[in-house]
Amino acid sequence: MGLELLKLQFLLIFFAATSCASAEVSIPHQIHLLRPQAGAAGSKVTGLTCLSWRLGVETNNIVGWKTVPEECEGYVGHYMLGHQYRLDSKAVTDEAFVYAKSHVLAGDGKDLWVFDIDETTLSNLPYYASHGFGAEPYNFTLFNKWVLTSKAPALPESLQLYKRLIALGLKIVFITGRPEDQRAATTDNLKKAGYGAWLKLVLKASSYSGKTAVFYKSSERAKLVKSGYRIIGNIGDQWSDLLGTNTGNRTFKLPDPMYYIS
Amino acid sequence: MGLELLKLQFLLIFFAATSCASAEVSIPHQIHLLRPQAGAAGSKVTGLTCLSWRLGVETNNIVGWKTVPEECEGYVGHYMLGHQYRLDSKAVTDEAFVYAKSHVLAGDGKDLWVFDIDETTLSNLPYYASHGFGAEPYNFTLFNKWVLTSKAPALPESLQLYKRLIALGLKIVFITGRPEDQRAATTDNLKKAGYGAWLKLVLKASSYSGKTAVFYKSSERAKLVKSGYRIIGNIGDQWSDLLGTNTGNRTFKLPDPMYYIS
Repeated sequence: MGLELLKLQFLLIFFAATSCASAEVSIPHQIHLLRPQAGAAGSKVTGLTCLSWRLGVETNNIVGWKTVPEECEGYVGHYMLGHQYRLDSKAVTDEAFVYAKSHVLAGDGKDLWVFDIDETTLSNLPYYASHGFGAEPYNFTLFNKWVLTSKAPALPESLQLYKRLIALGLKIVFITGRPEDQRAATTDNLKKAGYGAWLKLVLKASSYSGKTAVFYKSSERAKLVKSGYRIIGNIGDQWSDLLGTNTGNRTFKLPDPMYYIS
Repeated sequence: MGLELLKLQFLLIFFAATSCASAEVSIPHQIHLLRPQAGAAGSKVTGLTCLSWRLGVETNNIVGWKTVPEECEGYVGHYMLGHQYRLDSKAVTDEAFVYAKSHVLAGDGKDLWVFDIDETTLSNLPYYASHGFGAEPYNFTLFNKWVLTSKAPALPESLQLYKRLIALGLKIVFITGRPEDQRAATTDNLKKAGYGAWLKLVLKASSYSGKTAVFYKSSERAKLVKSGYRIIGNIGDQWSDLLGTNTGNRTFKLPDPMYYIS
């Protein structure tokens, strides 16, 4: 199936789902075209380099990039709208849950799990599907407008993990790079998407303006630790969610080949 | 092509190449069967979960595993003997070189680059191709015997990076988990494979027995830093090469879906 058709199908299903507040958002499972531009078996095709690019991004070898390489837009689009993104996400959240289950809670209510928000807790795929899957330069105005609709669906694998962690007795803290003035829209969106409760929702205060995500998130985690909390686990789609200090006993990297935040 | 035929072809070419001391070892480029067990397009196949497993391993989400999952032996074998492993390695070493080039040397001879050895500098693929590509449990006796032959070829992408870094004026230090009593065989192997010179070859002293690779490698890097060296870059196939302390200004993770070292 062509990418345009796939995007259309995805957006139709997404907006049909969000038009009803309580509907579960279904991201269609299209096959992941692993070799979208492959010709005869064995010939070297441009598509293959997009595989290496994605692996390089996911392993933090390729850093500081501004947009998805133009020739990989189709590859990234098919990946994000297809089976494989969801399967890859599930492999991460399943592993996170196996680890969380093995952890014995202290029972003092101080064991917590940190979630990033964008492309972790919530999915901005409806936005990115209309904006080149990261191949178009980031547009603050348009993305801000999207955020304020509060219509981002949950990444279903993360929502399941969230529910399972709460059932285990862990506290949840969201730490997001979204600015403080998006607090109302973000709270609204989290609730609509099925995230009902949390210990803290930390948004980026203006005092962190110009600081990296690694610095900001490390500083906020340090405050939690100073308050006596133990960060049992930490999950995000960016390495900047997971590197720095007080990162947590274990960290989990969800896939995101659409953008890079340092 | 079936995996058995592919292995046979690989081993024939490898041993033909190593029978002549000066021959360049050529790892044949077979197509990477990304969906080795795929049936009808769109159907969920076992093979797809091996993709998620490999991404989970490469991103350090899946840790502490002892062997490659049995059902992924074919997938890992095809990956390791095919194009994609080499393309993925090249994406990493190219990125490493771009970074190294951008670094301005202090000119005092204290700028260095750390290389791990197995599956980084040298490739044990001829051994693993006959031992299930990591699906068989690690056999110390047999692997030791292989190491003592000093016949491991260079990972060509790493050899190219090594030569380019030396041309830039960087010093090279190898830090390997191989034990001290493999020093002669390792030195011999490195030279045969095309690595002509280095500042230090650090092997694991018996005093580190029972310690993790992260502890051992961090301790040895600390010694280098204490001696006034600056670790500009650090490359390895295991996250334990790259985590811990004094990791280097930038770290680079080469692919290795065959084994895990903590």
